[in-house]
Amino acid sequence: MTKPEADPRSRLTALRTEIDAADAELVALLAKRRKLTAEVGRVKRNLGEPLYVPSRELALIEARRQEAEAAGLPGDLIEDVLRRIIRESYRSQQAHSGKCQGSTERPVIVVGGAGQLGRLFVQLFEASGYQVVVVDAETWQAAEGHWHNAQLVLVSVPIHVTEAVIAQLPNLADDCVLADVTSIKRQPLAAMMKSHAGPVVGLHPMFGPNLKNLAKQLIIVSEGRDLDACRWLLSQFENWGAQLQFVTAEAHDKSMAFVQVLRHLSTFVYGEHLQQEVESIDALLSLSSPIYRLELMMVGRLFAQNADLYADIILSAPDNFAMVRRYIRRFDEILTQLEQGNRELFVQRFNQLGAFFGGHAEQFLRESQQLLQAADDLRKPTS
Amino acid sequence: MTKPEADPRSRLTALRTEIDAADAELVALLAKRRKLTAEVGRVKRNLGEPLYVPSRELALIEARRQEAEAAGLPGDLIEDVLRRIIRESYRSQQAHSGKCQGSTERPVIVVGGAGQLGRLFVQLFEASGYQVVVVDAETWQAAEGHWHNAQLVLVSVPIHVTEAVIAQLPNLADDCVLADVTSIKRQPLAAMMKSHAGPVVGLHPMFGPNLKNLAKQLIIVSEGRDLDACRWLLSQFENWGAQLQFVTAEAHDKSMAFVQVLRHLSTFVYGEHLQQEVESIDALLSLSSPIYRLELMMVGRLFAQNADLYADIILSAPDNFAMVRRYIRRFDEILTQLEQGNRELFVQRFNQLGAFFGGHAEQFLRESQQLLQAADDLRKPTS
Repeated sequence: MTKPEADPRSRLTALRTEIDAADAELVALLAKRRKLTAEVGRVKRNLGEPLYVPSRELALIEARRQEAEAAGLPGDLIEDVLRRIIRESYRSQQAHSGKCQGSTERPVIVVGGAGQLGRLFVQLFEASGYQVVVVDAETWQAAEGHWHNAQLVLVSVPIHVTEAVIAQLPNLADDCVLADVTSIKRQPLAAMMKSHAGPVVGLHPMFGPNLKNLAKQLIIVSEGRDLDACRWLLSQFENWGAQLQFVTAEAHDKSMAFVQVLRHLSTFVYGEHLQQEVESIDALLSLSSPIYRLELMMVGRLFAQNADLYADIILSAPDNFAMVRRYIRRFDEILTQLEQGNRELFVQRFNQLGAFFGGHAEQFLRESQQLLQAADDLRKPTS
Repeated sequence: MTKPEADPRSRLTALRTEIDAADAELVALLAKRRKLTAEVGRVKRNLGEPLYVPSRELALIEARRQEAEAAGLPGDLIEDVLRRIIRESYRSQQAHSGKCQGSTERPVIVVGGAGQLGRLFVQLFEASGYQVVVVDAETWQAAEGHWHNAQLVLVSVPIHVTEAVIAQLPNLADDCVLADVTSIKRQPLAAMMKSHAGPVVGLHPMFGPNLKNLAKQLIIVSEGRDLDACRWLLSQFENWGAQLQFVTAEAHDKSMAFVQVLRHLSTFVYGEHLQQEVESIDALLSLSSPIYRLELMMVGRLFAQNADLYADIILSAPDNFAMVRRYIRRFDEILTQLEQGNRELFVQRFNQLGAFFGGHAEQFLRESQQLLQAADDLRKPTS
């Protein structure tokens, strides 16, 4: 440290040099840690152990929080920094594959295995030592001679052809697991039950295909038939790091109507409305608080994606439209009351909704504030 | 490092010990860095220098990115970690106050200075050496004898009383700056122009009151009269670290109709709709992908806040309701076309909207993916 009586300008320069040195140490430390976690990954792969161990992560973070707080640092700071570092270390691991939970002798057939999500599963199965056969509409004969012996047929094709593809599957072994990964569950599950008399399970992976591994990812599981005979497959997902959530196909599809159809559709309409009403997105952005910038981000991100995919999702279950109609009707009613200046009703309903959201409202506010900070960190300084 | 030929289990244990040691080093390094930045803050305060220097931050991050990439680390990792650390170091600084840009002799009167946002400005002015007088409806006489001499009267009261409060202000000095911090700008600005013949400026701070300092915060500025005479005040904000954005009151209010009224209202209606349609938020949450969890968070967070505040914002300009009506009408039209199975039109409009959002769509998708990762980091492991 420079002497406190030094001229303040030189003191500032000296302090900045010290900060730069500390940050260079930080880079070196992160590089060292990355080598260690890569080595952990290798050892775990050899042991066939899962990549992601929640209890180890919790304990590690808790210990560092305590050390940080003892050193006068906010626990949240070290937790955020560590989570960011840990995320990178998971992401940098190759398709991590624990031990094969099924058979290494009988094939796994991935229908649509050349698609994005299909490819991810093919990589994971292969890395775990499975024999994998990939087919799609053009290469159907590649599976010739494998169907009767397969331990798993995994259907990973676009929503609007899922049922047709399932209907044309040949006979499978009695104990073969038939599964799909479509984002709706009722119709594909019904089609699979009709096509195959053995074990059937519907899956909805809640992640996109741009992953190297499944650490911490959520897969929704809807039982079809003989869940016990599907256990090896579910264990395999867990072994790859995924978390499973069991729900009926009916409950799944009802929730997805809100999660996918209504949400995507109102985002779409908001975009359409902006195009009609404002000159440019830039003008809005320049006046945006962090929270609205986040809202606008959630709208704009839709339109960088595939129009057909969203058309498929929204049109996949036309019986959802009645629910969307009810949403529009409610919007109309509430607006009419506001036009009439009915402030009391708005405040009263607002408070009732606070009760409906319960503890989640507070929790969401807290989390969104942390997230807004993170979003704000993303904004590059403008100088 | 333990020997490579060691038994894999002990090797794993040894590696974990090394990781823990690296993380303990990280805690120590962050504590050291915090001491250095606190010292920088003190030196800067004495020098009257701004806390936030965008060019220094950019240069610092760029240098570390290059070092990281040379060491085989992703540049984004070190950038995210540094931004998180830097954010904490700004936040931990006390109300940082550069040199007084106005006069230390003439008072600053903050009307509503006992409110949350008002208090923040009072602290900032006081820390910069200003004489501050705080008044509200009950303590109006506290400013007796100061009005004619004040260099600034800052109005920080709830929207629905802003105009009335401005109307009852006594005569101010010809060169006194009259300013407000309301989230709408047309009406308050008109009221200030009527009440005072000297310099007038409308401000909309795009941040909440829970800040210790203004580093990197956005303030929207709408000119009223004699902006040159307001420069000292705007310099003061910049000196406190804020970024200024100039816009007319009309353009501000039009944008805010989308940013605040439509957005808050559709969030409110979505909450109302969920309450009518689903059993509980928990069921939805358990089936949520990271992106929908984020959407649900943005909805639920509203209801942890003050109903009256949102009623004020939404009801502040009834002429916005016609715009909201057009939104509902568009929603109805688009839904009708989807009910008729008009997929082509949806895809075509979707692609047009992609063009409207232009480069922002891709940028939002990228940023939202980073943000989703951050949101996902927030989810505590469940074991």
